[in-house]
Parts: sequence; structure tokens; C-alpha cells
Amino acid sequence: MPFVPSGVITLTTDFGHKGVFVGTMKGQMLRRFAAATIVDLTHDTLAHWPDEAGFWLSRSLEYFPPGTVHVAVVDPGVGTQRHIIAVEIAQQVILAPDNGLLGVVVARQTPEALYRLDQTRLSDFSIYDPSPTFHGRDIFAPLAAEIASGRLQPRDLGPAIDTIVPAWLEPPRLEPGRVVGLIVTTDHFGNLITNIDVEAIADLKSPRVVAGGHEFELKRTYADVRPGEYLALINSFDVVEIARAEKSAADGLGLDRGAPVIVRQTA
Amino acid sequence: MPFVPSGVITLTTDFGHKGVFVGTMKGQMLRRFAAATIVDLTHDTLAHWPDEAGFWLSRSLEYFPPGTVHVAVVDPGVGTQRHIIAVEIAQQVILAPDNGLLGVVVARQTPEALYRLDQTRLSDFSIYDPSPTFHGRDIFAPLAAEIASGRLQPRDLGPAIDTIVPAWLEPPRLEPGRVVGLIVTTDHFGNLITNIDVEAIADLKSPRVVAGGHEFELKRTYADVRPGEYLALINSFDVVEIARAEKSAADGLGLDRGAPVIVRQTA
Amino acid sequence: MPFVPSGVITLTTDFGHKGVFVGTMKGQMLRRFAAATIVDLTHDTLAHWPDEAGFWLSRSLEYFPPGTVHVAVVDPGVGTQRHIIAVEIAQQVILAPDNGLLGVVVARQTPEALYRLDQTRLSDFSIYDPSPTFHGRDIFAPLAAEIASGRLQPRDLGPAIDTIVPAWLEPPRLEPGRVVGLIVTTDHFGNLITNIDVEAIADLKSPRVVAGGHEFELKRTYADVRPGEYLALINSFDVVEIARAEKSAADGLGLDRGAPVIVRQTA
Repeated sequence: MPFVPSGVITLTTDFGHKGVFVGTMKGQMLRRFAAATIVDLTHDTLAHWPDEAGFWLSRSLEYFPPGTVHVAVVDPGVGTQRHIIAVEIAQQVILAPDNGLLGVVVARQTPEALYRLDQTRLSDFSIYDPSPTFHGRDIFAPLAAEIASGRLQPRDLGPAIDTIVPAWLEPPRLEPGRVVGLIVTTDHFGNLITNIDVEAIADLKSPRVVAGGHEFELKRTYADVRPGEYLALINSFDVVEIARAEKSAADGLGLDRGAPVIVRQTA
Repeated sequence: MPFVPSGVITLTTDFGHKGVFVGTMKGQMLRRFAAATIVDLTHDTLAHWPDEAGFWLSRSLEYFPPGTVHVAVVDPGVGTQRHIIAVEIAQQVILAPDNGLLGVVVARQTPEALYRLDQTRLSDFSIYDPSPTFHGRDIFAPLAAEIASGRLQPRDLGPAIDTIVPAWLEPPRLEPGRVVGLIVTTDHFGNLITNIDVEAIADLKSPRVVAGGHEFELKRTYADVRPGEYLALINSFDVVEIARAEKSAADGLGLDRGAPVIVRQTA
Repeated sequence: MPFVPSGVITLTTDFGHKGVFVGTMKGQMLRRFAAATIVDLTHDTLAHWPDEAGFWLSRSLEYFPPGTVHVAVVDPGVGTQRHIIAVEIAQQVILAPDNGLLGVVVARQTPEALYRLDQTRLSDFSIYDPSPTFHGRDIFAPLAAEIASGRLQPRDLGPAIDTIVPAWLEPPRLEPGRVVGLIVTTDHFGNLITNIDVEAIADLKSPRVVAGGHEFELKRTYADVRPGEYLALINSFDVVEIARAEKSAADGLGLDRGAPVIVRQTA
């Protein structure tokens, strides 16, 4: 069944907001597909660490229209022999380097198909002399525009494959009576967001969340405690989160990405 | 008279730029209204403080097309019983939590109508199981898309009301020969922006601006003093501002949000 | 030959992301040209320093569609007698204050035409009472929308001219066996980006890059050295860059904008 594009393209990078890196990617897209609707998903994932970008992307697909093309560029190996992959998943397409980023995504949801870009055939896609340091602008953006416009199908990029580089991070470990995961990212408010999915703790009775030597009760929303108090909750992306009402849990607890988090049953 | 949408939707939040919070709001809008034109107004208002978002929104309406739908989400009470309000104002619509944010807006300009969302009827708008922690994505974004597409009128959301939660901040105090206000926000340059409207000081003769133990002359523009020198002016949003030419007044004076500012007449 | 607009408008400013400065510029554009496609090029150039904005703009033109209108506002002289210029270049148009910003652009590429806005005729363009402190919103945005919509040609703005304010920075100095330039900006990764174009060093044999008392080999891409090691390369914008694989060269070397960089031949 062919991929039916919606015309929406999203961007996920570790480029931050300095310079014209994101802007020129958008220009390249508009040169090829003037009617594209381009959305910034995030440009503030941890630099050089594909897992955070993969985490956010895997949790965002359901909020976008079928036919969306997502470009994810966290790419420390740019210009080397690392591959570029197109994933068809949930009636959407993701383009990303094959460096673990997509491993996070396909670990959560089975893809419909995986294709590996044949980089010897770039001229077939009217891509000439890409720079060795910015494939986001020179390869990913043009391909995303071609796919989002409907002129190219993911399968046109190269051979179908069935294995990709796995995520760097191990998934949460399920042990008797507890689940062990870690903080995968923080948000602007200082909330600590873990990789522990709500389903992983579904069988724990009266679960409590342990991190940084403290234990937190699971609440429903931030305002269920008083300003300044800590809590844990299942956040809006269906993972366990540690928060502090109207304050920063990250600052208050001195915790950041990578810190271990345990959810344990207490009954 | 029905609201005639332009297709433009703006976003004002305290979410910053980390994570996919803003991005997934846009995805949700595009799922319902593919032709939406979405503009970021700002995502950098002070966290958990509705007044700054309300200030900027009240000062921005006139620069947008009639028919624009504005979504403002500074929402420490998300998931509690706080209400969600739609305001028809200046031929535009604002959707926001009823927590003071809109109090700032309606204090400046009389709205045409106010409606309170009937949250028991969300399924009528095809909204199911919103998360208790991210109404921006799960309630505000879908409703904004429906209104901006013309499928829903603000009055469809729920009952007309005539009172909302007032602003947290008091408006500037008019005293004989002076006006007492405060710094409501700063910009990227370190300019100190007050809540004192040009109209409030219209009757003061030879007004001067006092803050942080210093007194500043009212000038026309930044380059009316030499680089490094301080000045005050009526800024482009019609409020009193304290600035330092090509430098940061905030850093130089050690002043920030909340600091008192007095405009006094000297003749 | 008339300018044929594509409908794309880009924004380059030193406004950062606080407040509604960029957002209200976009609103003003959409009031006049609802079908505009607006792209943020960057809002994080060094405040009050036109050269960095000019550098990025001059290096970005080729990535945008013919017919793009670029608005660049780094404008410490706003509200004074400084001129506003429209440049036709590479089948695109740039609107900017005449303060050196455009000097950087035209030093790299010969423009097709230059026009000086006749600010006594603003009402001919339906621009009334612009604020003296925010021409970005009140003059540049409306003019860009008129030009991008095709209702106005650059030549309609005012007289053709042939000189503009030159760049503040001198271009790199070519000496026997070496080229002397400087760091013009850094990116989010801490890469140090110079103003030394690849063409300027084309004749140097076995060139090496000297900065901050260290000397760096020219490599092809970041992953050509091990994580943590330094390198130099010709980056994707065709200038010499000093980098550190998966780390920040800026932090590691203690270098920032303005630091001198020499490329010297060693054979």
C-alpha cells in the first residue's frame, strides 16, 4: 500500500536555535515542495545523544496526521558510512540516521516497513555533492520534501531491511515487585521524565516512585499537592514523571538525565 | 454576529522550547484543520504566572488579522476544577484557562462575549480522555482548530458568562502627580518593560521615570542616548520601558520582574 | 525584469525568543498577505552587531527558493535617520537597515539592484505612524508582505542607489602563505565558525588552522577524529571551522566571536 502524504513535515534535532541550521533545512524543503507545512517538534534534545530524540519522536507520532513525514537529525556520525533509514510506521514516515535513534522508536511500536537509503543513488533524487557535515540540510530535507510531496515513496530510497542499530539505552528492567528505569529527559519546568511506560507498572500494587534517595507518591496532576511539594505521576506521554508543583524537581533534587528511577510496589 | 475565522492560530505558553509540548499541540491542530496557519507568539513567559502571558496577549491583538484564534496556556491548575474560557474580543478569539490570564486582557479592552467551556460535553467536540496534565494539547489545541476552521463557534462551547478570575497583579495606581506600576517583563536585550500605559501618564507634566533608586528621562528611541547610557521611553507596545542603549538595563540596574516603577511629574 | 515572489518570507533578527517581537511581526505579515510562508532563519545573532546577521544571510540565500523575501532586523539605530534598503540579489530580495548588515552580503555576491526606502512616502504603502523603536514590526514586516505578495516591487520603495554602509568587520586578509580572519559566530555545539571562505585558502599548500595558540589539521568531517579531539574543517557553509568531536571547541579552547584565526600553509 503506498504511503499517502499529508504534506506535513516535522523536524527533530539537537541543533538548538543558534545559526541558520534549521532555517536552511526549511528553505531546502520549500525549494522542492512549496506547499509543505513544516512543524518544529524539538531542536533541544541532548547533543549527540540519539536516544532522547527517539524517545520524543516515539511518543509524538499519535498526535500528528496520518501521512506526516518526520525528519530526525541527531547525527554525530554525519559524513561517515553510517546509514540513513526511512521507517514507515503508524501511516507516517520517519527519516533518520541509523544510529540508535530509530531503535527507540521501533522498540515501542512495530514498523510497517524499513528501507535503507542507497547513498550511491543520491543523484536519482536530484541530490548532488552533499556536504560531509550537514546531511540534515543536504540529504534529509530534500528527501523529506520529495516524500511529503508524493513524488517519492519510502521504498524508492533503497532496499528493504529488517534490522537497524538498537537504542543505546536499555529499556526499563522488570524485576519482581519493581521496575528499574531512568530519567530520559527533563522539561522546561524541571519535571523529570522517565523511560518507564505506564504499562510496565500496571501490575504493581500501590506503586511508589524512588529516585535520588527519596520516595514519591503517584498523583493524578500537579495541583494535587501544594506548591513546592514533590509528586510523581503518569504524564501526558504515558511515562512516569517526578515533579514539584510550581517548582523545578530537577533543581530541587539535583537529578538530571541518566539518573536511575525505581517504581516499586508497596502493598 | 458569528465569528469569522481567518485560519490563523497563535500560541502563547510558558513551555519554553525543550521537549515536544508545543510541537504536539501543532500536530493536534493540523490533524483537525490541515490548512491552519500557526504562529508562535511566545513560549517564554514566566512559568506558572498567568499575568505575563496576559500582558503580551493584550498588547498583541491589534497586530493580528481579524478572525485569529489565540491559545494561551499558562496553567498551573491543569486537571483541577478551574474553568476554560473563550473570549471574543476585537473580532478575535482567545482560549485560556480562567486563572487571571484573561483578567489582564479584559481589563485593557472590553470583550464582545465570554463563554465557559462545558467540560462535561467534551465528547461533543470529539475530545476523549484528555490527560489531566496537558490540556494544551488535549483540549485547547483541538478546540482552537475547530474554531479556526469555522466548524465551531465560541458560543458552542458552553454558557455565556460575565465574570472571570481577575488578574493577579493590580493595575498601576494613579496618585496625584504620579503613577506607580511595576516591571511586568523583560526582553532579550534586557529592556525593562512596565505595566504603565502611555495613557496613564498622559496628564503628567515633564514626566520622569524612577526605578531602583535612579531616575530616567523619557526619550523617543534608544539611539537618543549614547551606547551604555540609560533612558526611559514609551515602547512600541505603548507602555513605559527602561532601557540602556546597546546594553542590558536589567543587568546594569539589577532589576527584574516585579520591581516597582514610578512615573512622576517634575513640572 | 520584475521580481517574481515565491510567497516565502524569512526572518533574521537579534530579538531572541522572549516576548512577542517576532510573533507580532508575523501577525503583521499575515494581515497583509494571508498566504505567506514565513520561516525563522535565526533570532539568535549577537545583539546590536549587524555583521553576524549579514554573515548568516549571505551564506543562506542559495538554500531558499527564487522569489524569497528576507527580512533582517539588527537595528541599533532604529528610529534615527539611518536608511532602510531593499537588495535584489540571486533572484531574492533582502530588506534590512543600512548599517553594515547588507555590506557583508554584497561583499560576497554582487546584487542585481539596490533601492533606498523613501521614508517620507510610507503612507503610499499604507504604513501610518510607525513606532520609533520597532520598525521590524511597523515598517519591515508590512513591506516584506507587500513584496512577497507581488503587490509591490523593490523599485517601488524609492531611488536606486549604488553605495551602502560597508560591513563593520574587515574581510579576511590574504598574506603570503597565509590568510588571517576571525571567528564570526559559534553554533549550539560550540563549533567556532570563521569568516574565512574556502576559496580564500584554495592556493595554500597543506593548510593548517591556528587559533588560541593551537594548531589544527583540516579534516573532512567531525567523526574523522575521536570524540573529544579537536579538528578544523571546511564546514557546510564553505568557511573554515574549528570543532571538537562531540564536545564544545568554544568551551574547550575558551574562544568566542572575534578571536583571530590564521590558516597557514605548511608545505
